[in-house]
Amino acid sequence: MDWLETKIRVRYAETDQMGIVHHSNYYVWFELGRSEVCRAKGFSYREMEETEGALMVVAESYCRYKSPAFYDDLIIIKTKAERIRSRSIIFIYQIYRPTDKTILAEGKTVHIVTNKDKEICSLPSKYRKMLIS
Amino acid sequence: MDWLETKIRVRYAETDQMGIVHHSNYYVWFELGRSEVCRAKGFSYREMEETEGALMVVAESYCRYKSPAFYDDLIIIKTKAERIRSRSIIFIYQIYRPTDKTILAEGKTVHIVTNKDKEICSLPSKYRKMLIS
Amino acid sequence: MDWLETKIRVRYAETDQMGIVHHSNYYVWFELGRSEVCRAKGFSYREMEETEGALMVVAESYCRYKSPAFYDDLIIIKTKAERIRSRSIIFIYQIYRPTDKTILAEGKTVHIVTNKDKEICSLPSKYRKMLIS
Amino acid sequence: MDWLETKIRVRYAETDQMGIVHHSNYYVWFELGRSEVCRAKGFSYREMEETEGALMVVAESYCRYKSPAFYDDLIIIKTKAERIRSRSIIFIYQIYRPTDKTILAEGKTVHIVTNKDKEICSLPSKYRKMLIS
Repeated sequence: MDWLETKIRVRYAETDQMGIVHHSNYYVWFELGRSEVCRAKGFSYREMEETEGALMVVAESYCRYKSPAFYDDLIIIKTKAERIRSRSIIFIYQIYRPTDKTILAEGKTVHIVTNKDKEICSLPSKYRKMLIS
Repeated sequence: MDWLETKIRVRYAETDQMGIVHHSNYYVWFELGRSEVCRAKGFSYREMEETEGALMVVAESYCRYKSPAFYDDLIIIKTKAERIRSRSIIFIYQIYRPTDKTILAEGKTVHIVTNKDKEICSLPSKYRKMLIS
Repeated sequence: MDWLETKIRVRYAETDQMGIVHHSNYYVWFELGRSEVCRAKGFSYREMEETEGALMVVAESYCRYKSPAFYDDLIIIKTKAERIRSRSIIFIYQIYRPTDKTILAEGKTVHIVTNKDKEICSLPSKYRKMLIS
Repeated sequence: MDWLETKIRVRYAETDQMGIVHHSNYYVWFELGRSEVCRAKGFSYREMEETEGALMVVAESYCRYKSPAFYDDLIIIKTKAERIRSRSIIFIYQIYRPTDKTILAEGKTVHIVTNKDKEICSLPSKYRKMLIS
């Protein structure tokens, strides 16, 4: 699978008093990237939660910040499902600013699949097939 | 009923690149104040949601900003249930910095009571009595 | 001036445990709308802050919530500069979901123009002209 | 150095539609923990930024989520400066819920010291001494 690109513009509320994007927001961007990977693969994560009761709970998250992002920057979130197992999925990310060709951050999240009661279960095979494709 | 005071310290993540607290965070502080009013009245809002399925949905919110709040400021959220009807409640707020005796903001939120299906209903009388007391 | 439309998709992180968008996020969306009004008028708000040191500080904010927004909804933020004076500007907003033609919320923000030292000043005439046009 | 404990109560706005705290908020809690470590060591991080122009920029962040946190939970943020070098600092964290003695998450952040122009510099020795003490 290739990298999926999602374009966003940095919000004023995402900055902090250092004048740069607060580091916690990169995790919100990663999540946006995951939603769009699902959509690109032919399903909506929202639907999977609603109709199958299957959740991709975040078990680990990591980010390395290489260069700051600023208010109003156009940013590309590159997302890739790196490993898809029946009960866990790993996504990796690059945050990229195309205007000066700078990689701003790189990250990774590990997810386990659970049902609505937060019990570990298998990713419904229908969705697994789409994600792998 | 008197004003209930809740003390918080301003978080770094709550600031924006103007070097002051982003205006949207005052609404999060107001919400904190409401939780503590419930607790002071003898119940937890969380329990009311869980056991009665009664939600205080925000129907309107308003804030007037008078002076900026800064990172690491000690802030007092003053909260008061101004009007308690069977299906709606109005809270009012003052955000106050005691170190220089400055009122930073004043606000108001209007709530309607709904069940889990977002249908308007009455505030369970047990909770209503406690809130009014 | 007409309404400017900005399209966004609701983020997972913007929801709360009621299963709907937390009411404080509408103010972040309003702010997005303001940025895009500036851009549509021919300037970037970021540039105005950086080169002129002119800030549009939020003095008042108001929102009326009519219908909930959900994760992954496509939403249109309609924004309009309702009154442009030399030292203050009023914006009004409508949050609209086109898929079911529902107005989710309506709001208003009042801004005063200040310099970097938070002293009230006039909106630089160059920007004022563009905003009014 | 020992673990410093900071007590907070989970905010409604910190939850998401899974009914648990959104994973990005743990990084905001870690930051709170760092502020309190500075205070416990005899200085305010705010002052260090203002008077010395020295910033502890986040270069890496990591969190492992072991058990969910819920709205209104009383939570203890345990924070420790694990390694203090002249130009970089590593903090580690445990998020703990005392009511059921559960460790909810463990994390780590790597910081580099920069001046206001985001150039790497040394932590002013006065602050370094206090942090190490």
